[in-house]
Amino acid sequence: MKNKWQGICEIISIGDELLIGQVVNTNASWMGEQLSLNGLQLRRVISIGDQASEISSALSDSVSRAEFVFITGGLGPTADDITKPVLCDFFKTQLVLNQEALEQVTSFFKGRGIELSERNRAQAMLPENCLPIRNYNGTSPGMWFETEKAIVVSMPGVPFEMKAMFTNQVIPKVKTLVKTNHIAHKTILTCGIGESYLADQIKDWELVLPTHFKLAYLPQPGIVRLRLSGSHHDQDELESEMNQLVEKLQPLIAKYVYGTGESTLEQVIGSFLKENHKTLSTAESCTGGYLAHLITSVPGSSAYFKGSIIAYDNVVKSELLGVSDTDLMIHGAVSQEVAEAMAIGVRKNLKTDYALSTTGIAGPEGGTEEKPVGTVWIALASENSVVSKKFRFGDHRGRNIHRSALEAMNMLRMELIRK
Amino acid sequence: MKNKWQGICEIISIGDELLIGQVVNTNASWMGEQLSLNGLQLRRVISIGDQASEISSALSDSVSRAEFVFITGGLGPTADDITKPVLCDFFKTQLVLNQEALEQVTSFFKGRGIELSERNRAQAMLPENCLPIRNYNGTSPGMWFETEKAIVVSMPGVPFEMKAMFTNQVIPKVKTLVKTNHIAHKTILTCGIGESYLADQIKDWELVLPTHFKLAYLPQPGIVRLRLSGSHHDQDELESEMNQLVEKLQPLIAKYVYGTGESTLEQVIGSFLKENHKTLSTAESCTGGYLAHLITSVPGSSAYFKGSIIAYDNVVKSELLGVSDTDLMIHGAVSQEVAEAMAIGVRKNLKTDYALSTTGIAGPEGGTEEKPVGTVWIALASENSVVSKKFRFGDHRGRNIHRSALEAMNMLRMELIRK
Repeated sequence: MKNKWQGICEIISIGDELLIGQVVNTNASWMGEQLSLNGLQLRRVISIGDQASEISSALSDSVSRAEFVFITGGLGPTADDITKPVLCDFFKTQLVLNQEALEQVTSFFKGRGIELSERNRAQAMLPENCLPIRNYNGTSPGMWFETEKAIVVSMPGVPFEMKAMFTNQVIPKVKTLVKTNHIAHKTILTCGIGESYLADQIKDWELVLPTHFKLAYLPQPGIVRLRLSGSHHDQDELESEMNQLVEKLQPLIAKYVYGTGESTLEQVIGSFLKENHKTLSTAESCTGGYLAHLITSVPGSSAYFKGSIIAYDNVVKSELLGVSDTDLMIHGAVSQEVAEAMAIGVRKNLKTDYALSTTGIAGPEGGTEEKPVGTVWIALASENSVVSKKFRFGDHRGRNIHRSALEAMNMLRMELIRK
Repeated sequence: MKNKWQGICEIISIGDELLIGQVVNTNASWMGEQLSLNGLQLRRVISIGDQASEISSALSDSVSRAEFVFITGGLGPTADDITKPVLCDFFKTQLVLNQEALEQVTSFFKGRGIELSERNRAQAMLPENCLPIRNYNGTSPGMWFETEKAIVVSMPGVPFEMKAMFTNQVIPKVKTLVKTNHIAHKTILTCGIGESYLADQIKDWELVLPTHFKLAYLPQPGIVRLRLSGSHHDQDELESEMNQLVEKLQPLIAKYVYGTGESTLEQVIGSFLKENHKTLSTAESCTGGYLAHLITSVPGSSAYFKGSIIAYDNVVKSELLGVSDTDLMIHGAVSQEVAEAMAIGVRKNLKTDYALSTTGIAGPEGGTEEKPVGTVWIALASENSVVSKKFRFGDHRGRNIHRSALEAMNMLRMELIRK
């Protein structure tokens, strides 16, 4: 085996279902992210069907270009027949019963109280020259092949089986071969500000970013994630630099930052409420339950979320939330007055510390010159005050609903951190 | 150009963002589905970064194997610099100002009241040998290249620009070249039955399916789509066969079928309610607003959906829905009695014809021996009756919430079709 690896990778994804659009190749994008986060370079992803000739030709091509070729799919009790013989041909070897693999498959089934079938026993037949990679979540072992110029790793296509194998066994082994710098990442989560405005706010900071740091803007509807990545041969140095950079960044965009890493806005406000023993309710018109859904998607949310009144109909707004008919008539359902009355009403009826409300025109119909589709009022009621804000989103119903819910949660977050 | 095309296709997706996991390659899977639905064969998908050498090598490879090579990405005001010179090199031609493309870019900006920038004007510079493909949704025209052995089509990577171009211009043109059989598809949507039970119900029908028909099971949480595809040289014959097959299939699974094609359960019940001038409300505990969210995700749902009471807290169940404290105490919040009282209560308070309720243990915490995580009661109240059903889903919070909402809507659908 060569002793100087640079970390050039390719992925071969096998499966007819990938070519006819039945399954989106999320495995490849997930692996691409993991490789990138570990300082390895993914150069190419190739998706092919369950055909021996295709697998064989893709494999020859990839091995001629890359140092590490990761194959996913084409294993499993029924698909084994195709991929393994191709690998045997390619490496000029044969299938033999691998004792280690047999023990693993046997213990997997034993743990589930199931008899081992002939088909599953065959899964322990592996090319003679491979090192088996244990599959802790299924019955198809992975395979690690080494040649002069390249390493080929074959893994099952089932996402959670592949992911565990890749993270815990494959990547660490690859990293012992490739002398990469230490890599560090920090993701800063922002909401309530668009990508280009955010870029404006931090442009002086970004301009003097050391060359071994890179900043990626990762926008989603209503949210922009900033991912700062650095690489350095000295880990302590890297971490200290990273911390300094983030410390300088934070104050520039403090009011937009709602968290770091992978957390969601609903988790962030949930923790805040829980820690401070505060409760929340919502009154929703245009978000139609989506705000409550996000809040209750967090396990344990019943500790702080009491409920919601979805007042899609104006009668519900007046009867259950106490919105005055005069306000509805004079200002209309999409107005500051109604938004505030809804928040006050639900807070009172559900006896919570805080209450959020939304009322707007989600679209695609129902807009007027004065209140076009995408106009949304959001209000927050608390013990001594009610605040509200008008937004003007776009013309896509789903995105308007989503962004309204995010802005509502962000309004609460701002109030909670202000205290 | 050759005169006998078989329809062998490859896709080349260009973009660094595809390799570092920032964007999932949904373009390729969507195109794969379209190709398959049109009787064309996608053999390979190759994803590469924004690098001239990679694009050039992938293109040579694909053209040597396939008849139709579809390139997406690598166009646009900033990325143009890379892809177009590669295409020029490959086809041994040069960039020239394309008058037709210039007019299209100009009119695109004029329609938005924006001046044409130099950068955008450069987008009308196209390889001399290509036929421009008009982009009705953006500024980068597509390009159609013909050689002796292959057609190469380059399209922008922005999904909605690419999709419109591919559907309306590219696929129809490809189909004039490839003599495929006529292809027909029919998707039957089922819910409330798992994939393997469904397969059992229709196995006699499936066994005698003519060989030029294929059946695909496309499962999603709570839903299984059955896609029947047929191919025949005679279109009338094909349609008549398809109709006969579907007619024989329907009665075997009548009560599970909620629609055909692309419709959702929330659209189906929405149309039913609207046509019959009936109204709906919901009372949700474990679904936490998700049921109302699905229902209100349908444009125009305010015509039949009045609102919801999300009673996450037991106090809300008793105070706003009139659930008796005795029932809550004796039977617990997750019980038939409480589910039914919730449905009756919200129907009365919101004055609707129908009302759905959900109460259950979504998880991951809160399960007991008697009522494990995934236990859900769903009730439906209407004018003269209330019905309820107990479900036992799995241990995944998100999926339990999703399946509860689907089953609730399905319960209403069954009631509506019974009338």
